[in-house]
Amino acid sequence: MLTLYSFGPGANSLKPMLALYEKGLPFTHRFLDPARFEQHEDWFKKINPRAQVPALDHDGRVITESTVICEYLEDAFPGQNALRPADPYEIAQMRIWTKWVDEYFCWCVSTIGWERMIGPFARSLSDAAFEEKVGRIPIPEQQVKWRSARKGFPREVLEEEMRKVHISIARLEARLTESPWLACDRYTLADICNFAIANGMERGFADVVNEKESPRVIDWIRRINERPAARAMFAKSQREKLEPAAREAAAGR
Amino acid sequence: MLTLYSFGPGANSLKPMLALYEKGLPFTHRFLDPARFEQHEDWFKKINPRAQVPALDHDGRVITESTVICEYLEDAFPGQNALRPADPYEIAQMRIWTKWVDEYFCWCVSTIGWERMIGPFARSLSDAAFEEKVGRIPIPEQQVKWRSARKGFPREVLEEEMRKVHISIARLEARLTESPWLACDRYTLADICNFAIANGMERGFADVVNEKESPRVIDWIRRINERPAARAMFAKSQREKLEPAAREAAAGR
Repeated sequence: MLTLYSFGPGANSLKPMLALYEKGLPFTHRFLDPARFEQHEDWFKKINPRAQVPALDHDGRVITESTVICEYLEDAFPGQNALRPADPYEIAQMRIWTKWVDEYFCWCVSTIGWERMIGPFARSLSDAAFEEKVGRIPIPEQQVKWRSARKGFPREVLEEEMRKVHISIARLEARLTESPWLACDRYTLADICNFAIANGMERGFADVVNEKESPRVIDWIRRINERPAARAMFAKSQREKLEPAAREAAAGR
Repeated sequence: MLTLYSFGPGANSLKPMLALYEKGLPFTHRFLDPARFEQHEDWFKKINPRAQVPALDHDGRVITESTVICEYLEDAFPGQNALRPADPYEIAQMRIWTKWVDEYFCWCVSTIGWERMIGPFARSLSDAAFEEKVGRIPIPEQQVKWRSARKGFPREVLEEEMRKVHISIARLEARLTESPWLACDRYTLADICNFAIANGMERGFADVVNEKESPRVIDWIRRINERPAARAMFAKSQREKLEPAAREAAAGR
């Protein structure tokens, strides 16, 4: 049995979720609400002591780290709609891309995202409530990031991260000009893991990701969104969001 | 045919080199001299446009990124002294450790190493010579790192990196207290990739890596050094260093 603990289908949480849909593997989704800091609650720390999503429970064994989970699914369910190429050289190209998104692309986008979303949210909390929440985070670097977001990241940090966002999109655009998919001539985990960060940037980073400057990236995002697995994943997530509201309305709350 | 382009057996260059020795795969070693910035020369940029070592040429196809090369050897030569476990869960644990060394452990050790070694070296060059060398580096972040090393990293950066070095060694020590090897009960790429960074720290970071505070890390470093593959690798590297000197002496230079 597979249980995925994650936020909704965005960023690192999207990676294993889309991989599960693409492979057609049935799984239970346990949604954790970031607005309620559910990932830092004690019950979840028993599943992942680092208090980070996503985490995958497979028959009682827990696998963490989004990219590692994606490769795990390939190792545990080989041959089932493979998302990893068969040729060793192509696998290596796939890993260069999944490594790059984890070490470079995801961080610059993430810092800007934290400044825009987590910052205002953190400032909406009282000092006491904020400290209580941050005190539960087991990773010191994550605590530092929450405090930086609340205070607002320094302008030079944001400028540097935005420079890296431009470099990242230019790199994707260049690759997608020579190949329909990132690692080789077929859709692989390299695409899923980079799509996890790039999807939605045509709205949030419209001055970088747009038809004029990065038409191939726009087209690649569209092609992935149109895949049956992605459509099913987003539709399900939409229903999950509506369900609690509908239940609460029905209960007269 | 396998050709490995790398520095000597330390840090990222050590990873694929030790993996090749462990697997017993014959290969040609093309040593690049970091003191002569050989990795930034045009001939090498034709092999790896990012001008970084290590790089592996396998029958004309080039694989880059040290950790990716290690996994490539497992994919291309399966069953030959496997350094990757067979069980998917154990492979995932291995990848969590190889990912951690690339994203965390290697960076904090590297910054301190750059401050101590690259800094004085960069300052020994004239401004013109330094700019000429740095101008050849294709990755902007690497240029920034060279400039920072020459100027000296800010004290708060070094203190933060040293804090992370302590956290890293504590994490390795905790893991090696419960298991003889990092990923599972046998030696894997997790050990090779972390050993690449940890080896020698008992000298360079003696206040962190020592018999009193990290006896298990010391013992694990010793056990890897005593393996026939590691001994053969270091002995060969020693001979390679002596050979040019002996040739020059014989030539009366």
